[in-house]
Amino acid sequence: MDDRPIGIFDSGVGGLTVAGEFLKLLPDEEIVYFGDTARVPYGSKSKEIVTKFSAQIVSFLIEKNVKAVVAACNTVSSNCYEALTARFDLPIIEVVSAGAGEAARITRNNTVGVIGTERTIASGAYERMIKAENPEIIVYSKACPLFVPLAEEGWINNSVAAAAAEIYLQELIDRDIDSLILGCTHYPLLTDIITRAAGGVSVINPAVQVARKMRALLEKRGMKRGKSDKPEHKFFVSDNSGKFDKISRIVLGKAYKAEIAEVEGY
Amino acid sequence: MDDRPIGIFDSGVGGLTVAGEFLKLLPDEEIVYFGDTARVPYGSKSKEIVTKFSAQIVSFLIEKNVKAVVAACNTVSSNCYEALTARFDLPIIEVVSAGAGEAARITRNNTVGVIGTERTIASGAYERMIKAENPEIIVYSKACPLFVPLAEEGWINNSVAAAAAEIYLQELIDRDIDSLILGCTHYPLLTDIITRAAGGVSVINPAVQVARKMRALLEKRGMKRGKSDKPEHKFFVSDNSGKFDKISRIVLGKAYKAEIAEVEGY
Repeated sequence: MDDRPIGIFDSGVGGLTVAGEFLKLLPDEEIVYFGDTARVPYGSKSKEIVTKFSAQIVSFLIEKNVKAVVAACNTVSSNCYEALTARFDLPIIEVVSAGAGEAARITRNNTVGVIGTERTIASGAYERMIKAENPEIIVYSKACPLFVPLAEEGWINNSVAAAAAEIYLQELIDRDIDSLILGCTHYPLLTDIITRAAGGVSVINPAVQVARKMRALLEKRGMKRGKSDKPEHKFFVSDNSGKFDKISRIVLGKAYKAEIAEVEGY
Repeated sequence: MDDRPIGIFDSGVGGLTVAGEFLKLLPDEEIVYFGDTARVPYGSKSKEIVTKFSAQIVSFLIEKNVKAVVAACNTVSSNCYEALTARFDLPIIEVVSAGAGEAARITRNNTVGVIGTERTIASGAYERMIKAENPEIIVYSKACPLFVPLAEEGWINNSVAAAAAEIYLQELIDRDIDSLILGCTHYPLLTDIITRAAGGVSVINPAVQVARKMRALLEKRGMKRGKSDKPEHKFFVSDNSGKFDKISRIVLGKAYKAEIAEVEGY
């Protein structure tokens, strides 16, 4: 038994879609969430700066006494995972391999699409991970930088979102993909419009697999929370922009309060 | 005479549209530009964090020996100008009063529209400044958070940009504005699509007035550059994301090189 909380972090509030899957699948666990809203987005920034920011955040979560960390951010997962695991001792789970594994399992025609931020797509991480599962799978990737601001604007189902989804997804559809990984934590907010633009393909939200992976890890290591009282989750953001309230209400079904925390200089 | 350079800073690369007007109007002056590409965008962040970031950058520019500073970022201009002028001794020019003054001069029906980031619009700064010029002018404002990522995606003239511009501008057109201030340094990149969506209204880029204001200030104080050799401009960014090359080529007509500089902890 290990009563300490699980740390989940993201470049901003998008990682709340991952926290939401944890609340569903691991309802007895406590969560400490950190969203770097002062420096969001990470997806258009360099690998060096994102690695630095991530290490500052993991140090912060360790100070909060977490037993394991989830790098909910695809940009972090695909660029900084080795650097973080080399530097820190506690278990760290990233989101890319989970999504890649699911795509490899469900594709029928061995043709998978991946959408994400510029940085995630440029890293080639999903392609590498999918090919590690099955080298015969062909992966087509597309950066969709407008999807994050669209989700944050609340334009998740209007003409602008539809036009953007059609432009971004056309070349993947032309390649005959039969499954599509949402390679950014914000994208599940746009599931409806993406599913419509993508025609009949299977849309994969990696967060579901990540929560399963964490459950397996805690069970295997005997690290599940033992206390039977109601878990108390904590949410931190590096800047109070109002986005946390808006997105937490959509994703978690209730407006949690977030504290402001500074991580610079760790 | 004062041979020191002029400092211009912005939350990212959008301020290059301001630097471009300076190169045209003050061709003998040297410029030191800083774009906070590691922490862009400012427009959706809180006043406190944006004030902190701005003060770090002005300190950095002072270390680079500038004689005056332009806060090219509308978010900074409309939220942090008092805090910056209270803290630093050198002349600081902001962009909001310049744009407001021009709108007050050219409106015929005393009905002006302002578009900008969420933070700029929430500050009410343009409205206050315009009413200070002429209390009879009615100002309608609209935050357009998608315009910055559209400009950075290079989608400055496609169906997505057109749909976004139509949605954002409709309520301003319905109010019968006859002039529209581009209250964000990125927006001049979208001038064509904004002008089309806005019908026959006069579109105002405040950067033109800002450059004139700086010229007047330098002349009045005898601070113009005396050297006759070709000015050497310096460009700094806090993260190398590739955006600088792309936007500097569009805005300045040639690809300047930017150095990476860290401003955290000033």
